[in-house]
Amino acid sequence: MAEDVKNEEVEKETEAADTVTDDSVQETAEETPEKSELQLANERAEDFENKYLRAHAEMQNVQRRANEERQNLQRYRSQDLAKAILPSLDNLERALAVEGLTDDVKKGLEMVQESLLQALKEEGVEEVEVQQFDHNFHMAVQTLPADDEHPADTVAEVLQKGYKLHERLLRPAMVIVYN
Amino acid sequence: MAEDVKNEEVEKETEAADTVTDDSVQETAEETPEKSELQLANERAEDFENKYLRAHAEMQNVQRRANEERQNLQRYRSQDLAKAILPSLDNLERALAVEGLTDDVKKGLEMVQESLLQALKEEGVEEVEVQQFDHNFHMAVQTLPADDEHPADTVAEVLQKGYKLHERLLRPAMVIVYN
Repeated sequence: MAEDVKNEEVEKETEAADTVTDDSVQETAEETPEKSELQLANERAEDFENKYLRAHAEMQNVQRRANEERQNLQRYRSQDLAKAILPSLDNLERALAVEGLTDDVKKGLEMVQESLLQALKEEGVEEVEVQQFDHNFHMAVQTLPADDEHPADTVAEVLQKGYKLHERLLRPAMVIVYN
Repeated sequence: MAEDVKNEEVEKETEAADTVTDDSVQETAEETPEKSELQLANERAEDFENKYLRAHAEMQNVQRRANEERQNLQRYRSQDLAKAILPSLDNLERALAVEGLTDDVKKGLEMVQESLLQALKEEGVEEVEVQQFDHNFHMAVQTLPADDEHPADTVAEVLQKGYKLHERLLRPAMVIVYN
C-alpha cells in the first residue's frame, strides 16, 4: 500500500514535470529565437530522454500492478462460486440430521459433503472458528445471560457455520453468545 | 492471436532497430570525430525520441495484454473449483437413484443438487450436450453395432455427464455410442 502511494506520487510528479517541460519547449520556440540550434537540439534530446525514462518507469509500474492484480485474482478466484455453494452445504447438514436415514443414504450424503468440503479446502476455503466471539467473523443472532460458568463473549451455540476464503470472510457464523 | 504475432514482430523489429541505433552512435563517437556537436545532439534527440516512442508502444502492449489476461482469468476463474465439485454431483445423482428414499430425503437431495447446479450455472458451467457423438466433448467408453434404427455416431447412453465452462471442456461425457 505504502508503495502504491509512493508510485502515485511519482506519477503526479512526472505529470507535473511533463507540463513544465512542454511549456518550456513552447517558450523556447516562441519567445527566445536567439537560442542556438545546438541548444535546441540538446534540449530536445534531454526532453525525449526524460520522456523515455518516465515511460520506462511507468511501464514497470504497470507491469508490477498487473502482477499484483493477477495474484489477487488467482487468490480469490473461487470467491463467488464458493459463496454460492455454501447453501448446499447447509442443506446437506440438514439432510444428514434427519432421523431414520438408511445407511446407504447416510453414506451417500456424507460422501457428497466430504467431497464438497475437500474441493472448497483445496481452493483455500475453511470454516470460521467459533471458540471466542469475534465480531469480524461471527454474527450474534441471539444472546444468553453470562454467568460464572459461561463468561461474556463465549459462544453458546452455532446456528449456521461461517466460512472464509484465505483471510477473507465469505459469510459470518451465526451464533448465540453469552453476554 | 494474429494481433499478438504482429506485436511480437514489432518488438523484434524495434529490438533490431535498437541495436542498429546503438552501433551507429558508437561508430559516430569513435570513428567520425569530425561530426559536429549539432549532428550529435540531433542524433541523440532522435535516438531518445525513438526509444520513447517504443517504450510508449510497449507500455500499451503490456496494458492490453494485462487486460486480456485479466478477462481470461475472470472468465475461467471457477475452473478448478467447478471441476472439483463434479464428483459431488455424480454422488448426488447416485444417491437420488437409490430405491425407497423417503420424500424428505429425496427433497433434501434435490435441493442440494439444484443449488449446486445453479451455483455452477451462474459461473458459466453447463452440461455437455449428447445428441450426436462429438469427440471434442464425449469419450466413447463402449460401442454398440449401428443399424438402420441407430445410425453410426448416435449416442446410445450417457454413463457419466460431461460439463463445460463457457466453451472450455471441464470433463467429457462418458458415453456408449453406435458404431
